[in-house]
Amino acid sequence: MKIEAAPLQQPAFPPPARPGDPLDAVDTPALVLDLDASDANVAALHRQAAAAGLAVRAHGKAHRCPALALRQVAAGAIGVCVQKVGEAEGFAAAGVRDILVTNELVDPSKCQRLARLAGQPGLRLAACVDDPLQVQRLAEACARADTRLEVLIEIDVGQKRCGVETVEQALAIAAAIQRAAPRLALRGLQAYHGRAQHLRGVAERADAIARAAGVAGEFRAALERGGFAIREISGGGTGSFPNEAGAGIWTEIQAGSYALMDLDYRANAADPAAPQLRQALGVMTAVISRRASHAVLDGGLKSFAVDSGLPAMRDPRWRVVSLSDEHTVVEPLAGAQPLELGQRLILDPGHCDPTVNLHDWIVGYRGDRVEAVWPILPRSASR
Amino acid sequence: MKIEAAPLQQPAFPPPARPGDPLDAVDTPALVLDLDASDANVAALHRQAAAAGLAVRAHGKAHRCPALALRQVAAGAIGVCVQKVGEAEGFAAAGVRDILVTNELVDPSKCQRLARLAGQPGLRLAACVDDPLQVQRLAEACARADTRLEVLIEIDVGQKRCGVETVEQALAIAAAIQRAAPRLALRGLQAYHGRAQHLRGVAERADAIARAAGVAGEFRAALERGGFAIREISGGGTGSFPNEAGAGIWTEIQAGSYALMDLDYRANAADPAAPQLRQALGVMTAVISRRASHAVLDGGLKSFAVDSGLPAMRDPRWRVVSLSDEHTVVEPLAGAQPLELGQRLILDPGHCDPTVNLHDWIVGYRGDRVEAVWPILPRSASR
Repeated sequence: MKIEAAPLQQPAFPPPARPGDPLDAVDTPALVLDLDASDANVAALHRQAAAAGLAVRAHGKAHRCPALALRQVAAGAIGVCVQKVGEAEGFAAAGVRDILVTNELVDPSKCQRLARLAGQPGLRLAACVDDPLQVQRLAEACARADTRLEVLIEIDVGQKRCGVETVEQALAIAAAIQRAAPRLALRGLQAYHGRAQHLRGVAERADAIARAAGVAGEFRAALERGGFAIREISGGGTGSFPNEAGAGIWTEIQAGSYALMDLDYRANAADPAAPQLRQALGVMTAVISRRASHAVLDGGLKSFAVDSGLPAMRDPRWRVVSLSDEHTVVEPLAGAQPLELGQRLILDPGHCDPTVNLHDWIVGYRGDRVEAVWPILPRSASR
Repeated sequence: MKIEAAPLQQPAFPPPARPGDPLDAVDTPALVLDLDASDANVAALHRQAAAAGLAVRAHGKAHRCPALALRQVAAGAIGVCVQKVGEAEGFAAAGVRDILVTNELVDPSKCQRLARLAGQPGLRLAACVDDPLQVQRLAEACARADTRLEVLIEIDVGQKRCGVETVEQALAIAAAIQRAAPRLALRGLQAYHGRAQHLRGVAERADAIARAAGVAGEFRAALERGGFAIREISGGGTGSFPNEAGAGIWTEIQAGSYALMDLDYRANAADPAAPQLRQALGVMTAVISRRASHAVLDGGLKSFAVDSGLPAMRDPRWRVVSLSDEHTVVEPLAGAQPLELGQRLILDPGHCDPTVNLHDWIVGYRGDRVEAVWPILPRSASR
């Protein structure tokens, strides 16, 4: 067998901007964040959460940007949640002190990485489980690393993805966690209903979260009757935040998009009880080709995630027609001013989380000036 | 104004496998490439192209993997084409000696990067133009860098994206290129019709490419009548390859997907004249949660691009239901064997190019053994 391992030479790709640069000098395509909007969103949601007695655990999957996470913590978040061990490693290395992996781990090597991370001094770390095998693997990894982990039992409150379905399953897992002491300890429940956040109607979201709260309450009661303390119930997010804040069952909220925002969330009917969130995230592109019928921008499927719809121009007189790998075609509607070759345009993304993941840097700006340029965790953080 | 520039500490994320590892030990989610299938695809298409007198210019946008590009060159490709200056820099650094940027550049800093790259000894480099401003900017950048570049005039042969529409425009640009001598020289035309490659019917593709060939022939004749030599006509690709090979107008073919393949190309009606191409690319995931109704895999929108449809399980008795950021939900159909927690599964991607761009590494394997682990250019190569 032929083995190839020689590393290839690669150029260093510099960031698309430096602090102090004019915004319209940012190299394109680039992810840009309006810091005034983002800061206002963070302050507004944190204020409402505090008033409702809810902790905010900022969802790091949304931005994968340790610098932004540290700002959310400085603004009152108790820490972050993440979906992957790689993300946990990345946020911990940057100094985030409280991290929840909102996901199940089965692979022994991933369990070992998490167990080793749990040994980092001053770090509060936890993960989710929905099967006794995950409990066993995490316990074995912690024994090997000589560390301890807290775990949350994930329950399915309507997401139909991960999570146990019955109280009996939850009790069996809780017992397995108890047997794995002192390596593992039960912190509480994950009751996450991401789908509900994207239901368009205010009443639909309220109904879905009310049902989720009911399910979570039943599991909590059954576990407590079984002798298991449930100290935390984690879940919720930007789209259904007022519903979770009012339910009285969640102790912490996994909000992520609120610091960024996208077209999908903005398509929700506005809940009068929700904080007013402004579009903070954008992707800056430039016009590289044009004719009377359309213009072509220099970012496409490798700059915008389109799983939740196409991005949008901020000028409503221009319509996004199509995206290919590195191009977006836009066409003028009535009253549109012509675009110039080289002109920079910020588009709003359809879905913020996977859009951020297409970029190496977030360029934070205020007004027309770049204030900060932050690295985003590598794509390998998905592992 | 507050300036933030302190770099954050980041962990090094190791590759998902090492050469020699068993395939089922690859850390998930991971991009995997069946090297037997990829090598066979490359050999088959190169053989047919050679028989038709066509050069193959492997499209580096498909995989952004310099190691794979060098293999394609070793297998007979004349070099690569790319869409971005960053890609050109990445492939050149790895030793690719003939690179065409199949795209227009307007931004002076991008023109300067390309002009500087043109000074690399032994590198044959070119870019496309469809407006006199691009000619002017490239000429200025080459004058500043004291280098020379070849350019291709892009003509719209049906793609309705970039490219000039009229012979008069092409003649004006050719004259501008001539005035920019010796900094710039006209190599020929780019006549790319990417849309035609995804028309499902064999006759539809044949018609679209016949029309494109007709348009390209008219432009070539007009430019030659105007005294401009057209040495190369570049275009085409995996989906419409037999049509371009038979047209007698193209001198080189910009095929990229053929080394990887995806569900979108496989949805095309098979052209009996086309090389038989096997699915070489996949994304390996693992089961992290399961119940009777479904299983949950550990890769989602951050591992699979879904612009051209959802990925597919290789076992047709399992159906992909939905993807979220880091999860894919799959459900059993009649006769399906249950999946085990931790079980690894390779899924076929809907669209190869933006799927590759979600990963840091390609894990090349033969049979059940990892043979090579190759880095993919950073996301910043889109600039």
